[in-house]
Amino acid sequence: MTETVHNWEDHGYLVTYIKKNGSFANLRIHPHGLVLVDLQSYNDDMKGREEVDQLLNKVEERMKELFHSNIKRVKRLPAILRGGVIDRYWPTADGRLVEYDIDEVVYDEDSPFQNIKILHSKQFGNILILSGDVNLAESDLAYTQAIMGSGKEDYTGKEVLILGGGDGASNIDQMVIDGCKKHMRKTCGDVLDNLKGECYQVLIEDCIPVLKRYAKEGRMFDYVINDLTAVPISTSPEEDSTWEFLRLILDLSMKVLKQDGKYFTQGNCVNLTDALTLYEEQLSRLYCPVEFSKETVCVPSYMELWVFYTIWKKKTDI
Amino acid sequence: MTETVHNWEDHGYLVTYIKKNGSFANLRIHPHGLVLVDLQSYNDDMKGREEVDQLLNKVEERMKELFHSNIKRVKRLPAILRGGVIDRYWPTADGRLVEYDIDEVVYDEDSPFQNIKILHSKQFGNILILSGDVNLAESDLAYTQAIMGSGKEDYTGKEVLILGGGDGASNIDQMVIDGCKKHMRKTCGDVLDNLKGECYQVLIEDCIPVLKRYAKEGRMFDYVINDLTAVPISTSPEEDSTWEFLRLILDLSMKVLKQDGKYFTQGNCVNLTDALTLYEEQLSRLYCPVEFSKETVCVPSYMELWVFYTIWKKKTDI
Repeated sequence: MTETVHNWEDHGYLVTYIKKNGSFANLRIHPHGLVLVDLQSYNDDMKGREEVDQLLNKVEERMKELFHSNIKRVKRLPAILRGGVIDRYWPTADGRLVEYDIDEVVYDEDSPFQNIKILHSKQFGNILILSGDVNLAESDLAYTQAIMGSGKEDYTGKEVLILGGGDGASNIDQMVIDGCKKHMRKTCGDVLDNLKGECYQVLIEDCIPVLKRYAKEGRMFDYVINDLTAVPISTSPEEDSTWEFLRLILDLSMKVLKQDGKYFTQGNCVNLTDALTLYEEQLSRLYCPVEFSKETVCVPSYMELWVFYTIWKKKTDI
Repeated sequence: MTETVHNWEDHGYLVTYIKKNGSFANLRIHPHGLVLVDLQSYNDDMKGREEVDQLLNKVEERMKELFHSNIKRVKRLPAILRGGVIDRYWPTADGRLVEYDIDEVVYDEDSPFQNIKILHSKQFGNILILSGDVNLAESDLAYTQAIMGSGKEDYTGKEVLILGGGDGASNIDQMVIDGCKKHMRKTCGDVLDNLKGECYQVLIEDCIPVLKRYAKEGRMFDYVINDLTAVPISTSPEEDSTWEFLRLILDLSMKVLKQDGKYFTQGNCVNLTDALTLYEEQLSRLYCPVEFSKETVCVPSYMELWVFYTIWKKKTDI
């Protein structure tokens, strides 16, 4: 092994160990006592990983000896696997690093609108990931239940308008539908096989003109379920046309919603309080006064709690 | 910046850039085209993190220019924060790296049995972590519901024996109870304030002698809920006395369980199929024949699906 030492004087040391097989390690010693060991190796076999584990065991033992159990805390993190065919890291909406148990790339295509991935997780089943955002997994019945009113609604004989949905995705991307139809059947069943059934019709087009047409025709719905997109993460509504888009959808939806109808939609990660507050402010700026309630739900594949909204037209005194 | 280049010939390059302020970066170029950039800096302020983000933006842009959009994939992972007072990384039972939204250390003590941490998560509330294992968070009603039979049981007038429990933790560690009593009230309510109530009694002692005493006295229960420990992860039952311990608990529990009683317990992460299979094999080795069912449940703070067992004495033909 080659050893290279850098001494910052004020900032401690960096020692780099380079092995002939392409592996290397950094030992970073901070003056206040923090010691960081990073080992990087190129392995695509489990044997290599076991060797790394054994090496780290030895480093840990040796350090404990050297410091005569004066070490306050030792922490070893699981290895990060990079550059492989399978990418296991899909950060949460609130920016945390989480590793999924992905073992297969089922589908990976670019549509004109976005990158569409369907990855297989051992525990969650197939997961739909649109441009890096986890959208829905086969385990996520909780999502569908939440965006349908958490089992408290009786849909018998009701008129329901779903924007997006079926797969939790954008409604004008035929390739999302094609991918989900084939690989997310636990989620969509056979609904996407035929775009028209006895009591439903799937339109693959921009929902804005459709909503405008319905509004003009005076067609009204008992429920509008907006499953188009999460609340924008940006917190500058004046800069971001997505907020305007959201408000436009909301206004048009209210126009086609019966006076006693309900509008269901997802919000965002419960931790993104600024974005959620901004969304709620948009609700006070619609053409008609509305009221809302919200519910925090655990969607298994999200690895973070998610907020769902129920919105209804404010009852006016007669 | 100081630049140091190492050329492996067969294995590509490692370039180390060292900055005067104690930061450094590794650029690892593999011959088959994988390029890894690792940047390590010592920052405890958000400003430092923004600078790092801006720097990585520049690196990404420059690389895209240099390779004339011939880059197949670019992935940037959230920074890993190490060495701070707050540790945000609590790997899952199946060994995956997950970052929690921890923002406060509420309690951190060593008892004679284990390290006991209660950390505050923005979304999950207080989380009890015993020797590094996430045990239960205030968000985890789903755990309690699952280990009580998922709402399908009527406990009115029934005799119930809970081993462990209340906090999901070991039953002989007074310090766990003390910590939970104060910091996990959403989970335990006021049950731990008084160890004896109108219809319950909490014993802080080893459950084995208690079970033996009950068995000897002929005291029988409608339900036994074992919330002592997860199924051991080790898959060598002959080497591991934990399996014997588990079987002893199971045998004693069956002795105090009425013929038509039910035994509830947690299993393990759904991905640890070997450990779960071994557990199920233990069930066929008890003094009396038993049958079981299992259910997979999403416990919010676990970030992995968890298996729960219901076990009952096999009905014998009369």
